[in-house]
Amino acid sequence: MRILISVYDKTGLVNFLSSIKDHIDEIYGTEGTVKYLKDNNIAANNSSNLTGFDDLLGGRVKTLHPAIFSGILSKRDSESNMQLEKYHYKDFDMVICNLYPFVEASKTDDLEKMIENIDIGGLSLIRAAAKNYKNVAVLSHPDDYSMVKDVLQKNGKIDMKTKEILGLRAFSRSADYDIQIYNRLYRKLNDKQPEELFIHGYDRTDLRYGENPDQEAYMFKVNEKYGIPNSIQLNGKELSYNNILDANAALETVQDFQDITSVIVKHRTPSGVSSAGTLKEAFINSYNADPESAYGFVVALNRKLDMDTAKEMQKKFIEVLIAPEYDTDALNLLKKKKNMRILKCSMDHDPEKAIYSVSGGVLVQSRLDYRYDNLELKSTAEAGKEKLADLEFAWKVVAHAKSNAMVLAKNRTTVGIGAGQTSRIESLKIAIERGNSNVKGSVLASDAFIPFDDSVIECYKNGIDAIIQPGGSIRDDDVIKRCNEYKIPLYFTGKRVFLH
Amino acid sequence: MRILISVYDKTGLVNFLSSIKDHIDEIYGTEGTVKYLKDNNIAANNSSNLTGFDDLLGGRVKTLHPAIFSGILSKRDSESNMQLEKYHYKDFDMVICNLYPFVEASKTDDLEKMIENIDIGGLSLIRAAAKNYKNVAVLSHPDDYSMVKDVLQKNGKIDMKTKEILGLRAFSRSADYDIQIYNRLYRKLNDKQPEELFIHGYDRTDLRYGENPDQEAYMFKVNEKYGIPNSIQLNGKELSYNNILDANAALETVQDFQDITSVIVKHRTPSGVSSAGTLKEAFINSYNADPESAYGFVVALNRKLDMDTAKEMQKKFIEVLIAPEYDTDALNLLKKKKNMRILKCSMDHDPEKAIYSVSGGVLVQSRLDYRYDNLELKSTAEAGKEKLADLEFAWKVVAHAKSNAMVLAKNRTTVGIGAGQTSRIESLKIAIERGNSNVKGSVLASDAFIPFDDSVIECYKNGIDAIIQPGGSIRDDDVIKRCNEYKIPLYFTGKRVFLH
Repeated sequence: MRILISVYDKTGLVNFLSSIKDHIDEIYGTEGTVKYLKDNNIAANNSSNLTGFDDLLGGRVKTLHPAIFSGILSKRDSESNMQLEKYHYKDFDMVICNLYPFVEASKTDDLEKMIENIDIGGLSLIRAAAKNYKNVAVLSHPDDYSMVKDVLQKNGKIDMKTKEILGLRAFSRSADYDIQIYNRLYRKLNDKQPEELFIHGYDRTDLRYGENPDQEAYMFKVNEKYGIPNSIQLNGKELSYNNILDANAALETVQDFQDITSVIVKHRTPSGVSSAGTLKEAFINSYNADPESAYGFVVALNRKLDMDTAKEMQKKFIEVLIAPEYDTDALNLLKKKKNMRILKCSMDHDPEKAIYSVSGGVLVQSRLDYRYDNLELKSTAEAGKEKLADLEFAWKVVAHAKSNAMVLAKNRTTVGIGAGQTSRIESLKIAIERGNSNVKGSVLASDAFIPFDDSVIECYKNGIDAIIQPGGSIRDDDVIKRCNEYKIPLYFTGKRVFLH
Repeated sequence: MRILISVYDKTGLVNFLSSIKDHIDEIYGTEGTVKYLKDNNIAANNSSNLTGFDDLLGGRVKTLHPAIFSGILSKRDSESNMQLEKYHYKDFDMVICNLYPFVEASKTDDLEKMIENIDIGGLSLIRAAAKNYKNVAVLSHPDDYSMVKDVLQKNGKIDMKTKEILGLRAFSRSADYDIQIYNRLYRKLNDKQPEELFIHGYDRTDLRYGENPDQEAYMFKVNEKYGIPNSIQLNGKELSYNNILDANAALETVQDFQDITSVIVKHRTPSGVSSAGTLKEAFINSYNADPESAYGFVVALNRKLDMDTAKEMQKKFIEVLIAPEYDTDALNLLKKKKNMRILKCSMDHDPEKAIYSVSGGVLVQSRLDYRYDNLELKSTAEAGKEKLADLEFAWKVVAHAKSNAMVLAKNRTTVGIGAGQTSRIESLKIAIERGNSNVKGSVLASDAFIPFDDSVIECYKNGIDAIIQPGGSIRDDDVIKRCNEYKIPLYFTGKRVFLH
């Protein structure tokens, strides 16, 4: 094989070339690469021997020459061969190339450095080789070396399927490279959402099916840090599509709590949440808060799983468990339940915007943030420290429940959650019904303004003794008046947190 | 200005060059382009004068030469200028280039044609010019001509902001070009979902806000055909984020009906649906089927809006109206309501997979299709033709309602919809409550298997006299037995259609 090499990242290159040396006839490379190879006892020719050009413009155009591109794009038929011979050009069987580190350069936020790190020549080499993938094996990243090494050692040649894979990878890397340039250069020059939306999902996981058995489904990562796609599964069967949706809802909810907290989720909406002094207590409370927990659930914790909590969990039907870390003993105990999916997952919020597809397009929005600027007391009665803590707790929960959501909480534990109803009073009634004998002494959070004083009357009748809500109804005065009549402290956040 | 031109698509080129001719010093072009320009009385030099090369390999490498790329990438400082002079190269101020029509070629499904239409040289020119956007105006599509013409006519030069816009557009087009190659070549070679997911959204619409006022939001198209992003708004205020979600749900539901149908949606789930002999009748029925319609709603029709229906609509509080076409008179009548958002929208299904983002990644799944292979009668009693039509109607509706969904229908009109509940019997009770006196003689559709015979008992008590459901419960026999006891026809679709 005749190989052309032009690499920025030299990781693994020498090892790779050494491992396939029996298959190499000749290596051509750019100046820096040739020097590097010679320093590592690998013979190589400078590509300027073919082009007759030294590096021009500080190396910007070193390989952009017909001598190189004819050799890559040649179809290996008699006509191409004649043309190459006429000019004394050589054809290449393999191109090893990777690109200037644009993404790393962009992190410096230095425009000149970003521009300087936009690779032109290298990307042209990669794309040309990928176009002619049938004749040229293109290795566009050090990750490709081991596959090619294995194939060569096994078969003595690179088969067509491998060449196809390499060519496709090259185009996906090329697309991603320009997506990164577009997104980062746009933000640098304009400091706002780019005109065009590019999403690149990678590390595909094939799911058994989607929401229903007839639906084909996949999960992709879009970054290396956050959420369920980047979690490590320590036990259990593979996650289903619906598991992932529930696990994501549980994770995004528990991430909003700084205190030790346990969140139970059903159908993408929290059904029991508790913050407590110990994880065990938080878990038990969140379990007891949800009347239907016995039928299986997803639970997310924001602390390391300990033995005390694991012992409690062992008795329950947990479909998915999420925690940032696991005590070895506690993990081993739960691993006895073969079906329990156990995920180790970062508790950091993903800062990226959320995407939702509709027919013909996608909707993009920044993530909902429960935090308000200012909590305004609107009633004459005031909540004490304990009640205020419950109000803030209920507010965080209501921001994760489907609208119209009404959340009742007491002692940093949900008492009843009404959500996904067409009217707010209906949601409140469901929350009260779920809370049962526990409702007295709880506080209420509403995800959007309370439209009428009927909810206040309902609170009074059931002994619910403080309310937090965005405010903003044209009947706010009725609501305030009624709260004053019943001496129920009423707070406005000035912020709506509903999930449509 | 010195301009380099290499275009496949010659649309608007001659007009553009004529309109800016006072600013042009010299034009260089590839052989075909030069001939085309000369035929149109525009003087141009062949770029081979600079490179000293004729087209090699059938034109594959014609511009890939240092003479060209030095001239594009030159930083216009003294060092660059000296180098260019040394080789007698010229620097370019503008690059006009567009690419081989890969997407069109891919539609032939001919692999060789696809590969032949992967542009290497042109994309390299565009990317090089975009990298040096500060010094080179890059026009990578005929769409760019008018902006540049306007700027030149107004200011006599191309300002930096315009050059930035052109450079960014070039990178977005380059990214999109390679996304298309990756996706289409992958499918051609593998006939399955590509390993990597690329989504390109364009034609951004800035929305006032997202689900809540504090959330920034945008809509992008992902194709030119389907759905709300491709609809034409004929009247009313701009669509909100939540309007779009509701409108999409209404559209996707009505698209599943071939008969004349009207669908009313609240909170992303249908609340009233009717098929009838006339559109007016269908609309009135769907309105009356939803007890809360008075508070404003989204409605989608699958037929041209006529005057009779418009007159009915005029009396209602419609937030968004969707139809495939509009009678002029009917439209004019409704336009009197300044706030009513009126959309003309294709009734074709978007065949692409749906996307849903989670923290750290995206989920992708094929769209839910209500159609079953085989409707199996499981009871001794059989439904007549009319009841069967109602069962099929209810089944289509239940596939669009949030799980656990139970839909009651009579005479191709929903009587009551229970959805988004944590238990199926609860959903049924809500559907019955909504249906009120109308429930008797209706049929029931369930989006997933009916787990116990309690639902059948509830049907019997309320005069619901046929059931359609996927089947598959371990207690199917109980359900069948109970249906036989009550002489209620029971059909299994063998297919689940729930929305988690």
